[in-house]
Amino acid sequence: MINVGVLGATGAVGQRFVQLLAEHPWFNLETLTASERSAGKTYRDAVNWRLDKPFPESTGDITVSHTDVASLKGLDLVFSALPANLATKLESDIADAGIAVCSNASSHRMDKNVPLVIPEVNQEHLGLIDVQRDSGRDGFIVTNPNCSTIVMAMALNPIRSRGLSDIRVATMQAMSGAGFDGVAAMAIYDNVIPYIGSEEEKMENETLKIMGQFDGAEILPAEFSVSASCHRVPVIDGHTMAIWASVNASPEELKADYRNYSAPFSGLPTQPEKSVQLLEESDRPQPRLDRNRGDGMTVSVGRIREGIRFIAMGHNTIRGAAGASILNAELIVSKKYI
Amino acid sequence: MINVGVLGATGAVGQRFVQLLAEHPWFNLETLTASERSAGKTYRDAVNWRLDKPFPESTGDITVSHTDVASLKGLDLVFSALPANLATKLESDIADAGIAVCSNASSHRMDKNVPLVIPEVNQEHLGLIDVQRDSGRDGFIVTNPNCSTIVMAMALNPIRSRGLSDIRVATMQAMSGAGFDGVAAMAIYDNVIPYIGSEEEKMENETLKIMGQFDGAEILPAEFSVSASCHRVPVIDGHTMAIWASVNASPEELKADYRNYSAPFSGLPTQPEKSVQLLEESDRPQPRLDRNRGDGMTVSVGRIREGIRFIAMGHNTIRGAAGASILNAELIVSKKYI
Amino acid sequence: MINVGVLGATGAVGQRFVQLLAEHPWFNLETLTASERSAGKTYRDAVNWRLDKPFPESTGDITVSHTDVASLKGLDLVFSALPANLATKLESDIADAGIAVCSNASSHRMDKNVPLVIPEVNQEHLGLIDVQRDSGRDGFIVTNPNCSTIVMAMALNPIRSRGLSDIRVATMQAMSGAGFDGVAAMAIYDNVIPYIGSEEEKMENETLKIMGQFDGAEILPAEFSVSASCHRVPVIDGHTMAIWASVNASPEELKADYRNYSAPFSGLPTQPEKSVQLLEESDRPQPRLDRNRGDGMTVSVGRIREGIRFIAMGHNTIRGAAGASILNAELIVSKKYI
Amino acid sequence: MINVGVLGATGAVGQRFVQLLAEHPWFNLETLTASERSAGKTYRDAVNWRLDKPFPESTGDITVSHTDVASLKGLDLVFSALPANLATKLESDIADAGIAVCSNASSHRMDKNVPLVIPEVNQEHLGLIDVQRDSGRDGFIVTNPNCSTIVMAMALNPIRSRGLSDIRVATMQAMSGAGFDGVAAMAIYDNVIPYIGSEEEKMENETLKIMGQFDGAEILPAEFSVSASCHRVPVIDGHTMAIWASVNASPEELKADYRNYSAPFSGLPTQPEKSVQLLEESDRPQPRLDRNRGDGMTVSVGRIREGIRFIAMGHNTIRGAAGASILNAELIVSKKYI
Repeated sequence: MINVGVLGATGAVGQRFVQLLAEHPWFNLETLTASERSAGKTYRDAVNWRLDKPFPESTGDITVSHTDVASLKGLDLVFSALPANLATKLESDIADAGIAVCSNASSHRMDKNVPLVIPEVNQEHLGLIDVQRDSGRDGFIVTNPNCSTIVMAMALNPIRSRGLSDIRVATMQAMSGAGFDGVAAMAIYDNVIPYIGSEEEKMENETLKIMGQFDGAEILPAEFSVSASCHRVPVIDGHTMAIWASVNASPEELKADYRNYSAPFSGLPTQPEKSVQLLEESDRPQPRLDRNRGDGMTVSVGRIREGIRFIAMGHNTIRGAAGASILNAELIVSKKYI
Repeated sequence: MINVGVLGATGAVGQRFVQLLAEHPWFNLETLTASERSAGKTYRDAVNWRLDKPFPESTGDITVSHTDVASLKGLDLVFSALPANLATKLESDIADAGIAVCSNASSHRMDKNVPLVIPEVNQEHLGLIDVQRDSGRDGFIVTNPNCSTIVMAMALNPIRSRGLSDIRVATMQAMSGAGFDGVAAMAIYDNVIPYIGSEEEKMENETLKIMGQFDGAEILPAEFSVSASCHRVPVIDGHTMAIWASVNASPEELKADYRNYSAPFSGLPTQPEKSVQLLEESDRPQPRLDRNRGDGMTVSVGRIREGIRFIAMGHNTIRGAAGASILNAELIVSKKYI
Repeated sequence: MINVGVLGATGAVGQRFVQLLAEHPWFNLETLTASERSAGKTYRDAVNWRLDKPFPESTGDITVSHTDVASLKGLDLVFSALPANLATKLESDIADAGIAVCSNASSHRMDKNVPLVIPEVNQEHLGLIDVQRDSGRDGFIVTNPNCSTIVMAMALNPIRSRGLSDIRVATMQAMSGAGFDGVAAMAIYDNVIPYIGSEEEKMENETLKIMGQFDGAEILPAEFSVSASCHRVPVIDGHTMAIWASVNASPEELKADYRNYSAPFSGLPTQPEKSVQLLEESDRPQPRLDRNRGDGMTVSVGRIREGIRFIAMGHNTIRGAAGASILNAELIVSKKYI
Repeated sequence: MINVGVLGATGAVGQRFVQLLAEHPWFNLETLTASERSAGKTYRDAVNWRLDKPFPESTGDITVSHTDVASLKGLDLVFSALPANLATKLESDIADAGIAVCSNASSHRMDKNVPLVIPEVNQEHLGLIDVQRDSGRDGFIVTNPNCSTIVMAMALNPIRSRGLSDIRVATMQAMSGAGFDGVAAMAIYDNVIPYIGSEEEKMENETLKIMGQFDGAEILPAEFSVSASCHRVPVIDGHTMAIWASVNASPEELKADYRNYSAPFSGLPTQPEKSVQLLEESDRPQPRLDRNRGDGMTVSVGRIREGIRFIAMGHNTIRGAAGASILNAELIVSKKYI
């Protein structure tokens, strides 16, 4: 068993990490950190549990530590659900102190030496871990993309070898992406908010890094263009998106690509049976009906039409956040980086 | 005063017609028709009023007629909120009988001789009324486009002279577009339904007719392409859409176009102060906050960005349906077709 | 293994039965019935699966039968999700044909010889099975109460020995209680509908039968009064209710009753660890956070205050419908009625 | 014209005050106050307008003042939308400075000398203004009750002379009652929150003061009991409530009381045509359909049944807050207290 911790364990993504790690077969959840206010309390007392899955009682007696490097002694790996302003320095310090960091924060995603990884899409980018180590760091940082980027990149991946260009994407994103208190009910009920701060830039920049080539030293970004328009809708979980892509293939050929697709690895505990699922019904995927496929780790696609246009949907706090980091960690372990 | 009737007056769009016509300065609402079941009752008893505006008491004592040509004797003009399957034959018969028909039904929109009109966009298409008359018909049919098409065409119109091509549009459409009982709560709550039957085809085909040239005999459709992806979201009223367009201008130039835009006519009772309103805030338009601008007749646009990408939003049952037909009728009267 | 069938297997409650029975340790799901239109198809083709749990593939190849007695040959027990108008005659005929019927339909609930059972509350009422058999019937009918009645009766049961009188209950009921298509989105969104047909009468009458005494021949109804006010709110699953009861005890004494309460039996597969759970937080139970406790079979109570007032909440389509019938069937088997 | 100001003009209730006062025939809106952060800006720049009515442009150029006594020089009357913690001292200071205060804050509602008034219910309590003046104060404070209390008291008033006892009330309250940012979307969507801090106590205590007798010196509270259970539901505006009352009359007699009821005064600008409206349909009132009756000032009642049980509903931010204060001010002016 590998000893792990969760940084920022009382927030929305932090709770999701704890829920997914409580019974993990490879990871022993030893340390939970939060702000000064919670430090010293048991996790049961510190957290205001708000997931619709029951509180994992096995974590209730863990004493919450303050989020700092000293609290993490003895850990092999930490999962970071820190806000970006805290993550920038802290994650670097933790990696320097010899601990592996799998981070959901945006701070280091675009760093030259830091891999931005979706296991099914660009596992070879983990080679940047060696680059980090060669630069004198004892541990390392591996990041996962923004939630909407992950869903789109997963959905494009099975048809990527056809050649992609001129991507347009309009998202209809769930409220949970903003955290428990991020969206006021009076702001979103009976409404659409056609703006999410920095989201369009993240989708545009992160996708090109993820789909770039690793040449042994650095990532050469992909060269197609991505143009995103991001919108919040009154949905609890699950980001839905309409995607246009110039691809040299017919809808039927692309459907075959999806049907034939399987992940390029197997045996990771958090890996779903199908990473990408093609739905054939005319009105799917839908977030409420499809977000829990593969325990929230499957991205669903459907309505592949001339254009090429199609719909993609995935669970934003599982496949798009905590589950993404955990799958990265499993890949790292399976590749013996730890 | 012009004597008018409403066909299909008990349904969702029919109620909206009645509400907007009850106090109209030019139109005297004389006849309300519905199915056999309601015929003979007073409108007050026949209708299950479900708008959030109060029932217009002045219409309560009108005796509902069965929807047929005989019931319409003495009327100058009727508004049609009929379902497409009934409208095809009935509207033709009514026009043949010498009555003007302003229809919200889809049946005749793409007919060669029937104008598909948004007053601000293509009032000159009303010339097809003469073509209809020349073909021996005593009355005529004028149609308005589908709700989502209207919002998009209104939003594109102020920048149309820049040259448009390669339109992509992803819609987030309100539930009211499907009628009072069209969407089950269990189907749409906490959900997005990424499919609306025939909607994408309507947006693609109707837009090219509306933006086409009338050469005195027929409409030559516009030649740019439109690719639509249509989705239902949990919003009561107001269709929001993300639009991409290839336009030879910068966002700032386009913003100026919107600021300088005004409708090419004035003095129509249902015409809003601003047909198209540019909102400068970073997160607008939003359906709940902006759908009632101009009493529901103003289309709002915002977030004009490189790409060119922008957001458009309009009230689907007012500007996109009943209000659209009424504004058409006002234009027809002002141009002395009646 | 006991061979079972589900009557009305394609509807909302029918799908829930299938989902809960697909992997049941005691029951072998052999027969699924539906209307003439679906008969002859595989269940996979006949059903429009709309639960947010994945479709149970093991049931996909069952050929759907028409709902009649002849289709049920060889079964020991059937679960009925029929509408009341069909259930009245069919359930009687099936019981006469020697098959046990566990019904969620309202048709026979108030029949003199038919037990209306919640296992935790009045298992001794199963004695009416013998009364049915003595009257010459080969099989028998056992019913479970209406969804809101079950939640209230479960919540009152742990404090029932204190003596209850003058019950008032105001419900806030989920949309799923009306079936998939029972409530239009336009009717309930941003709204409360303060009326549910026959619901108040069911809560008032069924509660007194359930809490009545079985004297070996018939049920003597309980003698306290129940006054219900029933309302629909925009919630997907989970009926919440505010209950007043005259009870001779303090809130603290009643909380102790709840903490000390356990079901009067054990070992039934569908039985939750806790049938009734007292929540101590000031703002619980809440349907979204608490409805899935005990896999939907636990009723939660909270906010016990002077008055006596408190809140109860339970999952209406699991504990309040399909799960209720299945738990009844398990009790029947454990008591050797089959 | 009477010169007035609004204290706390940028918040949810403050915006409602401004919207209702912008075109008021008696009141000249001269001063708007807010926190230090907004002081010195124009109202247009200071406010983040979030009502679905358009921003009243006539108020846009008013320079926002800091909320203190000095800013109010020259005003005859101020409306207070202050939070309770600020209102306690400030409202007293303002009244001492000779200005009339009509307050929606809870701070002084239960003060011995301060009238807690709903014009239709207890206008004679305004006599306490003289008591305040006799105690040496130059101005005075008049308060209106909490939003849910107002709806219930208005609904009970027409049947009050029948004799009331043993009131029970279960509320289903709108989200707007908590202010724009008071309820997180993730907390209330697909949910009911069965707790609103201090709300039950307010309904219980304020109702007895409002319905008490003024003997020329003080209020003798009414003697019946009120037991409230308060719940938040996913509704934007409009508090719905199920009320039980022991009344010595049949439902039919009570319906006649409602039909015959009219307000004990007339001619106030904000007064609706009907203060209390009986709806005869079996499923009304409903917040979305009925909250705007009488421009939000009418309280609707329906479903009067044996029990006595009935439903009441009213607009919480108009009749239940800003409109309530304004109607109080109009009554005060009409009675020559100013």
